[in-house]
Amino acid sequence: MTKELVILAYSGGLDTSCILKWLIQKNFDVVCYIADIGQDEDFEKAKKKAMNIGAKDVIIEDLRKEFVDNYMLPAVQMGLVYESRYYLGTSLARPCISVGIVNAAKKLSAKYISHGATGKGNDQVRFELSLYSLWPEGKIIAPWRLPEFFERFQGRSDLIEFAKCENIPVAATPKEPWSTDENIMHISYESGILEDPGAAAPSGIYKMTRDLHLTEDYPSKIDIVFKRGLPVSIIIPSGHDKSMTLSDSLAIVQTLNKLGGQHGVGRIDIVENRFLGLKSRGLYETPAGTILHVAHLDLEAFALDREVLRIKKYLQDKMSDFVYNGFWFSPEAVYTRKCLELSQETVNGTVTVQIYKGNVTILSRKSFTSLYNKDLVSMDVAGGFSPEDSTGFININAIRLKEYARFTAQTKF
Amino acid sequence: MTKELVILAYSGGLDTSCILKWLIQKNFDVVCYIADIGQDEDFEKAKKKAMNIGAKDVIIEDLRKEFVDNYMLPAVQMGLVYESRYYLGTSLARPCISVGIVNAAKKLSAKYISHGATGKGNDQVRFELSLYSLWPEGKIIAPWRLPEFFERFQGRSDLIEFAKCENIPVAATPKEPWSTDENIMHISYESGILEDPGAAAPSGIYKMTRDLHLTEDYPSKIDIVFKRGLPVSIIIPSGHDKSMTLSDSLAIVQTLNKLGGQHGVGRIDIVENRFLGLKSRGLYETPAGTILHVAHLDLEAFALDREVLRIKKYLQDKMSDFVYNGFWFSPEAVYTRKCLELSQETVNGTVTVQIYKGNVTILSRKSFTSLYNKDLVSMDVAGGFSPEDSTGFININAIRLKEYARFTAQTKF
Amino acid sequence: MTKELVILAYSGGLDTSCILKWLIQKNFDVVCYIADIGQDEDFEKAKKKAMNIGAKDVIIEDLRKEFVDNYMLPAVQMGLVYESRYYLGTSLARPCISVGIVNAAKKLSAKYISHGATGKGNDQVRFELSLYSLWPEGKIIAPWRLPEFFERFQGRSDLIEFAKCENIPVAATPKEPWSTDENIMHISYESGILEDPGAAAPSGIYKMTRDLHLTEDYPSKIDIVFKRGLPVSIIIPSGHDKSMTLSDSLAIVQTLNKLGGQHGVGRIDIVENRFLGLKSRGLYETPAGTILHVAHLDLEAFALDREVLRIKKYLQDKMSDFVYNGFWFSPEAVYTRKCLELSQETVNGTVTVQIYKGNVTILSRKSFTSLYNKDLVSMDVAGGFSPEDSTGFININAIRLKEYARFTAQTKF
Amino acid sequence: MTKELVILAYSGGLDTSCILKWLIQKNFDVVCYIADIGQDEDFEKAKKKAMNIGAKDVIIEDLRKEFVDNYMLPAVQMGLVYESRYYLGTSLARPCISVGIVNAAKKLSAKYISHGATGKGNDQVRFELSLYSLWPEGKIIAPWRLPEFFERFQGRSDLIEFAKCENIPVAATPKEPWSTDENIMHISYESGILEDPGAAAPSGIYKMTRDLHLTEDYPSKIDIVFKRGLPVSIIIPSGHDKSMTLSDSLAIVQTLNKLGGQHGVGRIDIVENRFLGLKSRGLYETPAGTILHVAHLDLEAFALDREVLRIKKYLQDKMSDFVYNGFWFSPEAVYTRKCLELSQETVNGTVTVQIYKGNVTILSRKSFTSLYNKDLVSMDVAGGFSPEDSTGFININAIRLKEYARFTAQTKF
Repeated sequence: MTKELVILAYSGGLDTSCILKWLIQKNFDVVCYIADIGQDEDFEKAKKKAMNIGAKDVIIEDLRKEFVDNYMLPAVQMGLVYESRYYLGTSLARPCISVGIVNAAKKLSAKYISHGATGKGNDQVRFELSLYSLWPEGKIIAPWRLPEFFERFQGRSDLIEFAKCENIPVAATPKEPWSTDENIMHISYESGILEDPGAAAPSGIYKMTRDLHLTEDYPSKIDIVFKRGLPVSIIIPSGHDKSMTLSDSLAIVQTLNKLGGQHGVGRIDIVENRFLGLKSRGLYETPAGTILHVAHLDLEAFALDREVLRIKKYLQDKMSDFVYNGFWFSPEAVYTRKCLELSQETVNGTVTVQIYKGNVTILSRKSFTSLYNKDLVSMDVAGGFSPEDSTGFININAIRLKEYARFTAQTKF
Repeated sequence: MTKELVILAYSGGLDTSCILKWLIQKNFDVVCYIADIGQDEDFEKAKKKAMNIGAKDVIIEDLRKEFVDNYMLPAVQMGLVYESRYYLGTSLARPCISVGIVNAAKKLSAKYISHGATGKGNDQVRFELSLYSLWPEGKIIAPWRLPEFFERFQGRSDLIEFAKCENIPVAATPKEPWSTDENIMHISYESGILEDPGAAAPSGIYKMTRDLHLTEDYPSKIDIVFKRGLPVSIIIPSGHDKSMTLSDSLAIVQTLNKLGGQHGVGRIDIVENRFLGLKSRGLYETPAGTILHVAHLDLEAFALDREVLRIKKYLQDKMSDFVYNGFWFSPEAVYTRKCLELSQETVNGTVTVQIYKGNVTILSRKSFTSLYNKDLVSMDVAGGFSPEDSTGFININAIRLKEYARFTAQTKF
Repeated sequence: MTKELVILAYSGGLDTSCILKWLIQKNFDVVCYIADIGQDEDFEKAKKKAMNIGAKDVIIEDLRKEFVDNYMLPAVQMGLVYESRYYLGTSLARPCISVGIVNAAKKLSAKYISHGATGKGNDQVRFELSLYSLWPEGKIIAPWRLPEFFERFQGRSDLIEFAKCENIPVAATPKEPWSTDENIMHISYESGILEDPGAAAPSGIYKMTRDLHLTEDYPSKIDIVFKRGLPVSIIIPSGHDKSMTLSDSLAIVQTLNKLGGQHGVGRIDIVENRFLGLKSRGLYETPAGTILHVAHLDLEAFALDREVLRIKKYLQDKMSDFVYNGFWFSPEAVYTRKCLELSQETVNGTVTVQIYKGNVTILSRKSFTSLYNKDLVSMDVAGGFSPEDSTGFININAIRLKEYARFTAQTKF
Repeated sequence: MTKELVILAYSGGLDTSCILKWLIQKNFDVVCYIADIGQDEDFEKAKKKAMNIGAKDVIIEDLRKEFVDNYMLPAVQMGLVYESRYYLGTSLARPCISVGIVNAAKKLSAKYISHGATGKGNDQVRFELSLYSLWPEGKIIAPWRLPEFFERFQGRSDLIEFAKCENIPVAATPKEPWSTDENIMHISYESGILEDPGAAAPSGIYKMTRDLHLTEDYPSKIDIVFKRGLPVSIIIPSGHDKSMTLSDSLAIVQTLNKLGGQHGVGRIDIVENRFLGLKSRGLYETPAGTILHVAHLDLEAFALDREVLRIKKYLQDKMSDFVYNGFWFSPEAVYTRKCLELSQETVNGTVTVQIYKGNVTILSRKSFTSLYNKDLVSMDVAGGFSPEDSTGFININAIRLKEYARFTAQTKF
């Protein structure tokens, strides 16, 4: 009898290594899939480990460019921020990785996909909703939600014991007392000692960005060029930084990560609302993403009509929730994304930002497609409209208010 | 024949001094009204100037506490931010001053109120909509919108010449090439050389906050205590700063302004959409306001239910527009404010922030009325729900997505 | 060993009778709970049936007044309509019944609640979310979602066979080929032959309302009096109908149901989106509810300020979804309801409607708390504002549009 | 000296005839523009009248097809309804007529456009915002807002006297005591005796639709076919009505108007909120529009994904306000319209409606692009998902509610 094939989203860590072994013991063939989305990882070592455990094969796929072009930068363009603060670095990576896994599954005619996401988190939802969208007939094995698995492995020590028994190498260094998710856009930290929102995060936790007291003592200036709301190039003038002009999206993000990191840009410490209804505390560092979002927000307000901006804002808030909750491929997200992209036709131009001591400061912005009209607004130029018109405008707007005032004076509620 | 009485919102500057004289020449009795809302001003000197020009009387009223208690702190509670960035420092002051002027007008049985706001700006709208709401039968004289006035005084030089003719003292120092509005919450800068959004603001323009390279070299830590979303006290531990606990609202704001200023907190440079349909560029510095808003945002996300937060967010965005546009006393603002206050019943607790190098960093938050449940979210605790439930949750959420995927595969649009 | 006690939501029908027996066979003590919310049912017969099957006790509770006062009429006040058409008659009943069941469970110290709602519908969700809200520590047995049950009883014939074996009486008349839910507010019809949305509903399906060709040949006129958005009395003038004035809420609803039924008012045939992600087709007849909603909508637009109306509309649409999805007791619904009630302070007055041939026609409306001002709007009265003000109002509103027109002419997108 | 040319929107009535004369007396050349948008009017007689008064020329343009194709049917597609009830018949006509006038003005190199809309109404705003959008450099003469004009002509009698003096023929029949606006989509009635919202409208006021007691005694059945949300054809089966299939948009609307009129479909009597801040009472009859809107609403709910429907609903409510307020050509309306059209890609299919005694009843709907899945929803088919999944779905949704319940029990607010 031939075995069924499972594609396992593999990280090289303890959890997915044990799951790999467990799946093999359950009589599956397992091909491991490792997506390189910019995390700091020894992919070859992970591959070797998986092969040693018994994987039939290991696929390593570089999705960094894909992630930047089709998820991270569109998120900047759409202005996605979850609950006013979180730039969705992890949420955006999940659908991207799902595409990779499903492609592998289809190519290899696998019947199952498996992953190591836990049963209380957002990522199981994001992965599975993406997978089902891309592959509705697919089947998913989520061991951390199977009683057979989670009752057997009730804590980390059970996994370590199992690993030892099965000759799976376990890292000598003790695990950090929190969990981390890393990609080219951000690193997140949550769980463990971070679960107490009343305790300040330990110093030294962040990896992409320097602590403020260790940042450079000079500001860096960057011109960021946008086309239809997408960052298309950056220009760094000579000075403390090396002068350069970049238009490759990956290089833009890498460079802004480096510069942003040196200047301590993009850290947040928040309590957020998970899709499952739990509140959870998370730390995020998103250097390039923060710089790009701040610049985009500025250019957009400069370029867009006031009322278009408001509708776009509504759509952006909805889309942020869709993405956070794992609905990237849903009909509502597909539709909303089209609408958001439509709003960006005039968001073209250059924003000059300064990054320094954790701050992203807007210095100036230029656009040939902005509705800003200096002559119109200038106090020194009569142009465009008569001051007397304002009187009529105010008086008409006051009609409702006067009626309400008279009414309130008469009837006391 | 008795003269009609006008209450003039007086600043002591060139514009309102000339308007004062002009009103007197138009045969009005004029009582000047000066509101102290925390601006840096020599009120006695302004009074003397007005009396010399011919004012019948000058009223100076200290509205700082009123402004902080009934406008600034409720704006923090409601989370008001205009177009994602502006904390509405000027917009909030206008209705507050209007109450003062209308009270004076009613007390003195005046028939008219006059002000020096120009015909292209927001403030004429904010003042007049507030005045008409409070005093629907009142009449307003806005000289900058009367052809007789604005055709005669076409620029600053016309005003200076008029002032000289009429023995109105003119400041020896030349006016800054931009205009400024100041109160205890913020200072705004706009117009003049700032009208070019592509030119960086001149250095040295800001008054409440230090440039980043001149800020203190140590971080300051502050505990901010909220009750129903309102900041009610702050605790500053000993260290670089003097240890203190403050619960007077005015003292809280003044202290946070001082600390925030030392650390360069709260500057923005934006292009915003005015109610009249113009875009304008403005610079704002709001030290205490920024610290309080950042802390409140954190506590709110910690304390409120996810879905309540979303409805509150919608109302907050609407309210921000109402306030910016001058509708503080409108039926919609009165209603929305009640709803927003209702949402804050559980926003109680303490947020610990660190301010340093322009950054307001959340260190931790505590609340006895938060829905955060550490046991529920903890990966180490089974509590609350079975991991298997997540499978059902995901599968049901996937129904729509699978249908859509099947449908899209069948029908190509 | 003492048995565990289950409270079973009992209808007297085949499903819940079999469930009752099955629970007893599973060694539970079962107390049946029957809520009278206005359905056409022989409660005593149902009670006898349950006792014969082996129920420990049967509770019959008249919740009609409770349902009308705390669910149906507040829904009118809040303006709840799901997906623009459905007045939520079933959705509103579920939380009401849940209160009754939970009260019984607590009083009898039961540990379990059981119900006969199926696994694809909305009602299981509405019941259980309500039950968990009211009784978070409670446990629910939903047999139609237990494999042991639904694999054994795969269709109606399995249930009938079981009933026969167990001496449970089965109705002699064959079941209608659709399912029905009935209460004092409405009757709904779905499933079975109605599942084909392309097939017209069979004639004779409706019970509360006459077919249009069988309705009365005269119109009926009704004055409906509202206080804070709640219908508080109706006045029926003499004529074809008996003259009467009613202020008892139950009598109001019963009378309007009768009149509305005679005139064929309140039928809809729609496809709606269930919370689980399915689309389903349903027929509803809601005579009194339709009359009250139409009248309330009219009075509200008459009384409320334009901008308050818009915010209220947003909240009403959200609340409709909350209620449909079963979140009546959720934090968001509790909050939104408070906000909606706040909006109704000025919705006082009388609406005169005519019902005739399926139509609810507004004849006139009167209110002492409306912002309607006849003098202001009258073309014959100059009152309130100068026509010249409109010029300024239009010109200022045109600023954005002219800019956009010039801009669009220049740059072709 | 050559005279300036004015294009006057001319109706043939008393007001615009007097304005025509007055403009000529003010030394303008005047070309009258009459748009045929389906109103019941003797255009040739109006032309002769204008020429007699002294118009330089009269342009009569048939805009009915243009109006139906580019305004009325897109409004059905977008689902536009103002304040939940008004289908915007007049609001939609204004931008359409404006295009005609501006084209004429540009062709004839006119410098001015004039119209007879009054100073308190919506139409002045709609006309002028449309005109300025299409022709930002144009100038508008609105006599009813010029003191010189409105002070001279303070009432109808002044106009009549002027007309007599100037040999302008005045209709022998006295004017109806209300004002009327008519086009192929609807007739509106307002002002005069209708200004009292507490007085029922006089019988016999409606022209397009029969009173209910005079309607036909048989129902008419119609199949309405939609493509991307636009009605593209109707099929009337043989029976009481003549069997026909129509796909010309104008013929569709005319036929539905006739049928709808016979069955008394589409009347409303409402109080609405004008853009200027007034409330006004209006009566509308919109037979074809009502039938098409009701059918579209049904198909849309059938075809669209639940969450897409909600976003579309938000956009539709915004767009309705934009159109009512005169912003058809604004950036926000252009943008929102694009988004709304995008949402309609799957709104294809046929809705069968019955019209009878004022009711539009949905009998059935069919669509090949609906997400409705009979197998999925059917109680008789297991397909698609396991009932056990619903348990998990409910349990996870209950997490927030249980937390809230526990929390509320602990802390009493």
